[in-house]
Amino acid sequence: MSTQNLLAVELPKAYRLLNHGPTVLVSAQHEQDTDVMAAAWACALELTPAKVTVVLDKSTKTRQLVEQSGYFALQVPCFAQLDMVHQLGTISKFDHPDKLANCKTELFYKDGLEVPLVDGCIAWLVCKVIPEPHNQQNHDLFIGSVIAAWADSRVFRDGHWHFEDANKNLRSLHYIAGGTFYLIGEEVKAQL
Amino acid sequence: MSTQNLLAVELPKAYRLLNHGPTVLVSAQHEQDTDVMAAAWACALELTPAKVTVVLDKSTKTRQLVEQSGYFALQVPCFAQLDMVHQLGTISKFDHPDKLANCKTELFYKDGLEVPLVDGCIAWLVCKVIPEPHNQQNHDLFIGSVIAAWADSRVFRDGHWHFEDANKNLRSLHYIAGGTFYLIGEEVKAQL
Repeated sequence: MSTQNLLAVELPKAYRLLNHGPTVLVSAQHEQDTDVMAAAWACALELTPAKVTVVLDKSTKTRQLVEQSGYFALQVPCFAQLDMVHQLGTISKFDHPDKLANCKTELFYKDGLEVPLVDGCIAWLVCKVIPEPHNQQNHDLFIGSVIAAWADSRVFRDGHWHFEDANKNLRSLHYIAGGTFYLIGEEVKAQL
Repeated sequence: MSTQNLLAVELPKAYRLLNHGPTVLVSAQHEQDTDVMAAAWACALELTPAKVTVVLDKSTKTRQLVEQSGYFALQVPCFAQLDMVHQLGTISKFDHPDKLANCKTELFYKDGLEVPLVDGCIAWLVCKVIPEPHNQQNHDLFIGSVIAAWADSRVFRDGHWHFEDANKNLRSLHYIAGGTFYLIGEEVKAQL
């Protein structure tokens, strides 16, 4: 259970969870209905107050739940979840109501928030939609205000990722196409 | 000179140049004035017609040139350019008119387009701004339509990245904060 290593991330540093461009899982809930999808098109938008963007296609059940509830979570999955992430990005809950069970996706909740979080990820950002009908309709672009964030302390602590010290299974995934991903690699530091 | 390995990328596959979340360089030109800045907050927005988003702070000279000309280029820099990328992200041309010379940033042009491209990068996307005053003013968010794209054939060909076959110096950079970047790492394939 991932929650045993869960550490709160201060909101002005939440952008660092997404800054290196990982593929994310987007989760949402309306009443008892939940869904999770994979998305490569998520990005930080503002430092303070922390905001993010994510592109959610009109064909997805997750988008419907985001529109109904006004909330979503972005979470950073890791190598251990590779097959699950790809399945969550290719199967639609509209066609497969048992999607989450079939993908072996386990959800948990934090701090009384009714936004489902995916177990086993390495970072989580709970976001409140800032309604922008033009962006949502014309660009499938949703803007969210980050209201809470956590990370797995084995790979993110003191405001920084520490992939180099951790098991390879905890590395973030960076999707290209056709089931091919890259893992995040070596840390390097600019000298100037 | 990077242009010797430059290969055109068909526009419906241009998103793959950004899909793994690399830090980018944003370049622009108005009349004879040019600037280049580093940006971690760039993202694909649409497959066809290919569109991208990029966050450009109001304090940057590059943004001014984008607003004046209506065009920008996103390019994917690589490990060989680490120090230059960090300098381009920390120095403002408003304070240092010789920024590009000081950063040893060399520009080139393709196909008669008056959008400067940075030599030594591994991918380039030339974009025409889709004017959206609300997004630009309220979110510093610019949307661009991709009108041309190229990649370095040593690392991107047949619509896919091939980092694993190439020199480490050609790996993309993924910025976190404080001069710390990650290189893109190992390729992995989902089984399901």
